[in-house]
Amino acid sequence: GVLPLCSRPPVWGRAARQPPGLPLAPCRTFSNNKILVELDESSGVATVKFKSPPVNSLSLDFLTEFCISLEKLENDRACRGVIFTSAVPRIFSSGLDITEMCGKSTEHYAEFWRAVQEMWLRLYGSNMVTVAAVNGSSPAGGCLIALSCDYRIMVENPKFNIGLNEAQLGIVAPFWFKDTFVNVVGHRVAERSLQLGSLLPAPEAHKVGLVDELVPEEKLQEKAQAVTAQWLALPDHARQLTKSMMRKAVLDRLVAHREEDIQNFISFISKESIQKSLRMYMEMLKKKK
Amino acid sequence: GVLPLCSRPPVWGRAARQPPGLPLAPCRTFSNNKILVELDESSGVATVKFKSPPVNSLSLDFLTEFCISLEKLENDRACRGVIFTSAVPRIFSSGLDITEMCGKSTEHYAEFWRAVQEMWLRLYGSNMVTVAAVNGSSPAGGCLIALSCDYRIMVENPKFNIGLNEAQLGIVAPFWFKDTFVNVVGHRVAERSLQLGSLLPAPEAHKVGLVDELVPEEKLQEKAQAVTAQWLALPDHARQLTKSMMRKAVLDRLVAHREEDIQNFISFISKESIQKSLRMYMEMLKKKK
Amino acid sequence: GVLPLCSRPPVWGRAARQPPGLPLAPCRTFSNNKILVELDESSGVATVKFKSPPVNSLSLDFLTEFCISLEKLENDRACRGVIFTSAVPRIFSSGLDITEMCGKSTEHYAEFWRAVQEMWLRLYGSNMVTVAAVNGSSPAGGCLIALSCDYRIMVENPKFNIGLNEAQLGIVAPFWFKDTFVNVVGHRVAERSLQLGSLLPAPEAHKVGLVDELVPEEKLQEKAQAVTAQWLALPDHARQLTKSMMRKAVLDRLVAHREEDIQNFISFISKESIQKSLRMYMEMLKKKK
Repeated sequence: GVLPLCSRPPVWGRAARQPPGLPLAPCRTFSNNKILVELDESSGVATVKFKSPPVNSLSLDFLTEFCISLEKLENDRACRGVIFTSAVPRIFSSGLDITEMCGKSTEHYAEFWRAVQEMWLRLYGSNMVTVAAVNGSSPAGGCLIALSCDYRIMVENPKFNIGLNEAQLGIVAPFWFKDTFVNVVGHRVAERSLQLGSLLPAPEAHKVGLVDELVPEEKLQEKAQAVTAQWLALPDHARQLTKSMMRKAVLDRLVAHREEDIQNFISFISKESIQKSLRMYMEMLKKKK
Repeated sequence: GVLPLCSRPPVWGRAARQPPGLPLAPCRTFSNNKILVELDESSGVATVKFKSPPVNSLSLDFLTEFCISLEKLENDRACRGVIFTSAVPRIFSSGLDITEMCGKSTEHYAEFWRAVQEMWLRLYGSNMVTVAAVNGSSPAGGCLIALSCDYRIMVENPKFNIGLNEAQLGIVAPFWFKDTFVNVVGHRVAERSLQLGSLLPAPEAHKVGLVDELVPEEKLQEKAQAVTAQWLALPDHARQLTKSMMRKAVLDRLVAHREEDIQNFISFISKESIQKSLRMYMEMLKKKK
Repeated sequence: GVLPLCSRPPVWGRAARQPPGLPLAPCRTFSNNKILVELDESSGVATVKFKSPPVNSLSLDFLTEFCISLEKLENDRACRGVIFTSAVPRIFSSGLDITEMCGKSTEHYAEFWRAVQEMWLRLYGSNMVTVAAVNGSSPAGGCLIALSCDYRIMVENPKFNIGLNEAQLGIVAPFWFKDTFVNVVGHRVAERSLQLGSLLPAPEAHKVGLVDELVPEEKLQEKAQAVTAQWLALPDHARQLTKSMMRKAVLDRLVAHREEDIQNFISFISKESIQKSLRMYMEMLKKKK
């Protein structure tokens, strides 16, 4: 059940920000087209920055790079924690790329959906401490990334929204989006928010527990580092076993029904009515620009 | 597993409140003995009014009419949402009619309990948007009706109580009452409230999430209409699939154990100790008058 | 699956605090080495006091006496409710006795773990009303005792902490500690607290629902009596069936996996790395003194 990895290997290199005259800081960076990774070896914390303008949408390419980066970090003994954030102003991630779901072949839908599953399985099941530093709006799949982390910090700007708003597009969040959501906000808030496709402004999201903490934008990275350090103060082994105990049931459920879930996605997304409503949604987005 | 429907068919008719001189408003009403239904075809929203004085208790007749009305609306393409409210002052519904559980035959208990199950299966599993406009006290089965809706608005009067108070009567809420309750308020509040048989005044009920919103009595129907319209703004198909995803596990559990649940009810309610405590409770209610 | 009981039978006797000149109050006490039980026959409420200085740690002896006391009360028709509290200042219980888990034989680990399971099975599944009057800090296994009761009252002193802090010691709370915790505080708070091994000061614990109520120390016993009386006002039979309905799934899960859970504990605790970190923890505790 592993994503076929793309052929373009990531490139490791020294961080450019190395100040002159000081000994080399233990910071490595690597970058694909859409994701920038900076690993600070002294703290063991990597920062994964989404840099796929205009809105960091989760295309097949983005997802593939995301999984490669995550796998690379997971296997790197120097890395124990990851902070996810956006290099694009005002948006964390806009979620699944609708163009991947519109007018494509059945094979393409299957490949795309498997990549979405893979991203979630790796992220929700990661042994590393994972912190979302949400510095912009984060609908649908963007929200899922945040929900799958261990801790969510969001910029307190009420113009930034977050939520699983799939229902607004006429589509249904898959059961594992729902399970992840219920584990964070409880059954009632999930039931109501999913049916209404609610996008909550940051302060509302904080009130219902969708994010753990709000901070001013200029404090976000500092706070994310402090929180990650706090989680890393615990012995890795006990923390990882505990995390696995909490998340295993939900992870296992997708693993057990993975192919079925892909077939469900294909047959749902192939319906003419769904294709039509996705085309209308894309038109609307274009006009907004 | 469908309720044997009563032979008296409901009567459709024009709303009497049609103002003179205006074109006919698209409003249809139908009424049984204990329930009044008004369907506004322009909005797609029906109002179901309980009018079984003195306390809208859920007798076999009431439940049968309730299921017929619900089935009728569910199959009516003009109807997409339902508001449940009471036409009796100060009481939403007093819950299951104790006279149906006292001194009757085994067959009667079975028929009655099947009707209770049927009501819940139809309501909790409804494809329509369901909103409880709770304009009075709502113990036990009355509370279950509210819990089974998508949204609960209650008059802010602290004299109006709501809760699953079965334990106070010496009886036990069935597992599917409990499952529905847990899905709304979470495990801890449910555990405590069910054991204490708590009836909470409206403000307390709001605090623990048993109701979603409090309004002054004169704003209730307006608010219920606004909330229903908000839920109906979403595409039906996605909303319905999402609702089903959230509630299926709990619905399936009763469907799988329906006959067993009926037998449990019969053997519990047939105990002399239970019969005695129900008789005492009825005596107490009579003296209260 | 019953704990082999110790051979030293508890001794029943009259309460010493009997005021002179009055008819004998219906109060019986019995005491083992580490636990004092006072049963007030007029109210049907027993007070179980932990008196195993310096920190009421849950040694094999303590657990055995605890189970015997609980079984004795459970089978005593005069007893319907129990209040658990500490006779040691500033500590409710420090949790599992680490010396029982360090440098002992496999057989000893098995016997010890079976006693821990037995305590929880008896307490979480008790038919009596159980109230924790937490008058001091209560980490790990001490917290589990409180979580397993029907209601938790804690002294409002912010110097008193409570929580499942196993992760801080490099060990993992077993799944049934976790299940009990989730049933009280929900999945999200449990996931975060267990991974961080959080010990929360009383006010924080109250905020997340880990304890139900805070009171000044001098009001604790009075409040515990009042709460117990409130719960006992309900008919026993309905309350017990309701409690069982809420807790059965979680209890059954340990019963079904009890031997497996013992084996897991043994193989985990026997690891050299775990033994080392427990030894270091004990060193640290000694230095603290």
